[in-house]
Amino acid sequence: MALIVQKFGGTSVGTIERIRNVAARAVADYNAGNQVVVVVSAMSGETNKLVALIEGVAAFYNKREYDVVVAAGEQVSIGLLAAAIESMGYKARSYLGWQVRFITDSAFSKARIKEVEAFRIRKDLEDGYIVVVAGFQGIDELGNLTTLGRGGSDTSAVAVAAALKADRCDIYTDVDGVYTTDPRIVSKARKLDHISYDEMLEMASLGAKVLQIRSVELAKKYRVPLRVLSSLEEGTGTLLTEENHMMENILVSGITYDRNEAKVTIQGVPDKPGIAAAVFGALADANINVDMIIQNVSASSGETDLTFTVPRGDHKMAIKVLEPVVAQIGARSLLGNVEIAKVSAVGVGMRSHAGVAQRMFRALSQEGINIQMISTSEIKVSVVIDEKYMELAVRALHDAFELEKGAEGRIAS
Amino acid sequence: MALIVQKFGGTSVGTIERIRNVAARAVADYNAGNQVVVVVSAMSGETNKLVALIEGVAAFYNKREYDVVVAAGEQVSIGLLAAAIESMGYKARSYLGWQVRFITDSAFSKARIKEVEAFRIRKDLEDGYIVVVAGFQGIDELGNLTTLGRGGSDTSAVAVAAALKADRCDIYTDVDGVYTTDPRIVSKARKLDHISYDEMLEMASLGAKVLQIRSVELAKKYRVPLRVLSSLEEGTGTLLTEENHMMENILVSGITYDRNEAKVTIQGVPDKPGIAAAVFGALADANINVDMIIQNVSASSGETDLTFTVPRGDHKMAIKVLEPVVAQIGARSLLGNVEIAKVSAVGVGMRSHAGVAQRMFRALSQEGINIQMISTSEIKVSVVIDEKYMELAVRALHDAFELEKGAEGRIAS
Repeated sequence: MALIVQKFGGTSVGTIERIRNVAARAVADYNAGNQVVVVVSAMSGETNKLVALIEGVAAFYNKREYDVVVAAGEQVSIGLLAAAIESMGYKARSYLGWQVRFITDSAFSKARIKEVEAFRIRKDLEDGYIVVVAGFQGIDELGNLTTLGRGGSDTSAVAVAAALKADRCDIYTDVDGVYTTDPRIVSKARKLDHISYDEMLEMASLGAKVLQIRSVELAKKYRVPLRVLSSLEEGTGTLLTEENHMMENILVSGITYDRNEAKVTIQGVPDKPGIAAAVFGALADANINVDMIIQNVSASSGETDLTFTVPRGDHKMAIKVLEPVVAQIGARSLLGNVEIAKVSAVGVGMRSHAGVAQRMFRALSQEGINIQMISTSEIKVSVVIDEKYMELAVRALHDAFELEKGAEGRIAS
Repeated sequence: MALIVQKFGGTSVGTIERIRNVAARAVADYNAGNQVVVVVSAMSGETNKLVALIEGVAAFYNKREYDVVVAAGEQVSIGLLAAAIESMGYKARSYLGWQVRFITDSAFSKARIKEVEAFRIRKDLEDGYIVVVAGFQGIDELGNLTTLGRGGSDTSAVAVAAALKADRCDIYTDVDGVYTTDPRIVSKARKLDHISYDEMLEMASLGAKVLQIRSVELAKKYRVPLRVLSSLEEGTGTLLTEENHMMENILVSGITYDRNEAKVTIQGVPDKPGIAAAVFGALADANINVDMIIQNVSASSGETDLTFTVPRGDHKMAIKVLEPVVAQIGARSLLGNVEIAKVSAVGVGMRSHAGVAQRMFRALSQEGINIQMISTSEIKVSVVIDEKYMELAVRALHDAFELEKGAEGRIAS
């Protein structure tokens, strides 16, 4: 007998019919001899509707009241799901965030979970109940309602799984798992059976939208085996775990891309202290996040070129903010380019294997793709290229690392 | 400085615009130097929508889950109202039933309030907050959400007023007060400035739909001064209090009517023990409530006629249930009549004055209206008449007791 936490998003509970399907899935795991906890989001569209109401009623509102309003969405879906399970002849009981209880800090609208008191759930599971828990919400130490921010239900599910020391946390979504890359770009993209937490964190922050990053961080911290699978079709999905031996033989697990960045280059920067502080201080003051930064020092001229990326939506603002700075520091010119894309290869295997970057650059050069910027971490290599080559680059890298083959295939090759 | 509890129903918070109006009304009382607590229902239509959802998801559902689902309605309206008040530049804070806390029994969907822990509200009021409280909901001693049944927000408001020892509890509704009778029938009907709790209880149970009966009972028990007034127009409404000297000079405060009853007559009943038990036992088994009962004993024949009223919707069922009983007890015949109406005169002054019934019967006879049944209590006289004379009877009684005149006018006359 295993203890399984299942999580279903808003689309999965968006209609009465779909709520019945979720009930059937919970009952199936229960009938297979497991203890089952189901975490659900609000019915799709509800949270947006509630946000529109509070924005309509007050131009500026207290986040405490925002949380009271939006947390109502999950309250409806948990009651409906518990009722649906009971109508199938099983015992079910729903719990709100403050009942279970999910203790959070008081950062309304983006609270972080500090503790989950799971003894009520444990008691119910022992008594044969299927327990239904509201995602996305908690209670602070003063007894105020809080919410965890958009996508917070994934984090709720992992937190309750950690508190219960669950054998698995299954995140049901509209895709059937994590892929080696976007199947819309590479038709040969392959679903991964396993991926490590660290790889998933890199994939998530680089553009894959499958799981909320915080939920992966939490799963890693408490070693919760996390599975991503489809609520629409049968399948085993992708299991997130710590690294294992099998994984170590794989250099690269996936190729990700991101076309939401833009590039800024300041040419002819005098090579003296304080320049970087002036540039990035101005951007920070304007609340603009900077991702990759590259500085090329030219030994002969004593000048450098400074290049970095910012979110594409902030590009115009960045140029505007930097124009006076460029004049002030005596740089030669300020250039912007929004037609770029970032393509990355992610894999824990890189830690112990050299040559990944090399293989990546060779593959891109064979396609005639010029690399504009490079950045690396322990488990990823990212390059910035001309946006128009993005799909071509993703396909070339997917081929170069033989991602269409499973682990055994690649080890043999 | 007074402590005022205001209660607004679903229609009053049905749109963003109306929520802003409610906020303005709370702020007006606050700016007049009062401490203000506002109790609100769900936005109109919301509770029905939530009930439809749970009925759609499960043919038979647990009332615990029903309460979880329907209590979400007030959660939205309190957050919106608090945000609206804050956007006007005042401090506001919303509380759910479990936060304040309204401790109830565990009779899901029709729970009764046992206690209100008001210390959090009191603290906030002292700190200058306008406090917004969810009506209709509470928490049982096991920590489950509960709801109080339809119209329960009136009861929530009175309960919180009692716990805070409020100076007044203002129930805002779509009428501007309690009238001497229905103004749609008697154009001269007059709004009462005062009415006693007992009179209001009789009026409420006899057909006036202004306040939930339980809220009046609770107000009476804790001596909460309760005011009914319009949320749409300015006015002082009707104040419910204990009896006072002024009231004692008034025989009758109001005329009520009810056309939702039907009459059943069993003729030629042998006058022997056990007959009543057989008749009313059969009705009780069929879950049919009996209101007025009259038994006329005929000394000469040793037979009696038994007449009583039942809800009109149960009339057919009552006849069906009684047919075998009538045969069994050897009665002569079973007659039914749905075309009846009950008209009542209500007033605490009756307690110390004879002659009310007489004045009532005379007024009806002057209009040629035949009285079919009579029943009396300490503060009311009810008669059953042919339904077609109902409006005429209400007008005749309103005239006979000079209800169009205020208290002073009648004492002088």
